[in-house]
Amino acid sequence: MGKKIAIIGATGLVGQELIKLLNKRKFPLENLELFASEKSRGLNLKFKDKDIEVDTIGATSFEDIDIAFFAAGKAISQRYIPQAVKSNTICIDLSSAYRMDKEVPLVIPEINPHHLLNHKNIIASPNCTTSIMLIPLYPLHQEFKIKRIVASTYQAASGGGRKLIEKLLNDTKNFLSNKSSDYSYGFNLYLHDSPLNEDHYSEEEVKMQNETHKILEDPTIRISSTCVRVPVLRAHSISLNVEFRNNFSFEKAYSLLKKTKGLSLFENFSDNRFPTPFDATEQNNVYCGRIRLDTSQKNTLELWVVGDQLLKGAALNAVQIAEDLSFK
Amino acid sequence: MGKKIAIIGATGLVGQELIKLLNKRKFPLENLELFASEKSRGLNLKFKDKDIEVDTIGATSFEDIDIAFFAAGKAISQRYIPQAVKSNTICIDLSSAYRMDKEVPLVIPEINPHHLLNHKNIIASPNCTTSIMLIPLYPLHQEFKIKRIVASTYQAASGGGRKLIEKLLNDTKNFLSNKSSDYSYGFNLYLHDSPLNEDHYSEEEVKMQNETHKILEDPTIRISSTCVRVPVLRAHSISLNVEFRNNFSFEKAYSLLKKTKGLSLFENFSDNRFPTPFDATEQNNVYCGRIRLDTSQKNTLELWVVGDQLLKGAALNAVQIAEDLSFK
Repeated sequence: MGKKIAIIGATGLVGQELIKLLNKRKFPLENLELFASEKSRGLNLKFKDKDIEVDTIGATSFEDIDIAFFAAGKAISQRYIPQAVKSNTICIDLSSAYRMDKEVPLVIPEINPHHLLNHKNIIASPNCTTSIMLIPLYPLHQEFKIKRIVASTYQAASGGGRKLIEKLLNDTKNFLSNKSSDYSYGFNLYLHDSPLNEDHYSEEEVKMQNETHKILEDPTIRISSTCVRVPVLRAHSISLNVEFRNNFSFEKAYSLLKKTKGLSLFENFSDNRFPTPFDATEQNNVYCGRIRLDTSQKNTLELWVVGDQLLKGAALNAVQIAEDLSFK
Repeated sequence: MGKKIAIIGATGLVGQELIKLLNKRKFPLENLELFASEKSRGLNLKFKDKDIEVDTIGATSFEDIDIAFFAAGKAISQRYIPQAVKSNTICIDLSSAYRMDKEVPLVIPEINPHHLLNHKNIIASPNCTTSIMLIPLYPLHQEFKIKRIVASTYQAASGGGRKLIEKLLNDTKNFLSNKSSDYSYGFNLYLHDSPLNEDHYSEEEVKMQNETHKILEDPTIRISSTCVRVPVLRAHSISLNVEFRNNFSFEKAYSLLKKTKGLSLFENFSDNRFPTPFDATEQNNVYCGRIRLDTSQKNTLELWVVGDQLLKGAALNAVQIAEDLSFK
């Protein structure tokens, strides 16, 4: 039976990817409604062979909706998800609003689809960096138990929405025509500028810790990360150093990664080529390469992970959640 | 007494910085000779108020030279340094040719100037990433003894010379005008493409290990790093996770870093602004910020370090070596 779907934030970067995915995949869709802010109201967006008019959320918007994707940021999720839940709509929230709520499952379908069994009409989709990181780490954790992760990220502009992509493109053009400002994003990078906590970790870094604990159901995993915004458009890279509790076998780890759902190993030794953001752009799978034993410490692995921020980092994961709910 | 100086590789990126530094600093210089490859022969380069004609190296080139800077790559250093040494010229080599030679001191003047006392007319200047990393790590190692370093780098195009900067600019322009190729450097990043060893670490990563051991005279320090080329022009950033053997005090570490020669702390908490490659560009000092205790492990510090690849990473360090030799 087809589902009646709504996308909130339909004109944003992630909203656009949601529309594309629902169009491309064999999702059992009966009807699609698109919502956005006042300034997009009345806009017509193509979906399959018809136009859908973008609307703003009203008092009765969710009454006939089975599943709503919330991709318009934390404040909109906090404001409208309670209304949608009252209408018995299942809300798949891509913002951070409900991720750490104990009543709300936080789901990566390749990892913890069983958490979907207990939802109360809200399901959260994780932070983009966390989703991408956990695709390769989950099978390794099952086998060897992760003790500690040290992560440094190389995050794309898309994580900051269309505005940040435009800033990157404009700053780059200005730099090339000698109109650079002091704090350009063009040819520059900077530590993720989300607010710092009392330990001086940024909110993005804290999300990687907390969400990993929740998804892997293991709060003993110790995580320290440094999140960095790089002048790249839409794929995140992560340099991971992972220590395991159990005795570690590289061969076993490699063969686990090789057959991991949602992961592609990319190791071209003859050309010394490993995954780049360009390789991962618009790809559903997360890429992984330069997988090597850390020579500085026992039971420790170094790996390089790249994933499309808008797909596995956001829209694809949310659509996979909806598919799991709809087909089961 | 003034010194007779030669620069080999005078027209390269590092050579140009050497010329600028010798011009700007109070170096006791009597005469400057410039050498480059055949295609630059006859070119006139300005220095103070006169023109210096670029020449190629000949049989008698070093006969009247006190100090020669070799900034033309490993092969040229290997070929001509023996000739220069025979002429009793002190060779400051910026390439990797002699760095791990037991007879050759590898020197960062802020750290191990005492190694200069034992040279046999060849002194090596370290790999750029190593120099930048060790400026903040040296005082911490003296106080707390480093046990293990996990490093991820964000390295600029300048490390690959003028050609790589041109590739970055061209690939970026092509991307902006929709003429992108599959493997563009514009808006993309990639693992450092120096050859991999049997453990699958790149040569650049191995240099960070070996050179750190030699400079800090402590082969027990364990180091694992991931070197990445980012679309940035000329400053390297490094995300460092450093574990210490001795009991660690954050306050003590911070106060040591604050008074470290060649280092500037840059921590603007009110604007959530920490050092970027743009901040460090054309700056002699290395910048450091987001210094924080690693909450995942005892006695461990996270820090973010940025330095100009062409200055502290290359030309400045070499000129400081020459100054130490000349003033002592």
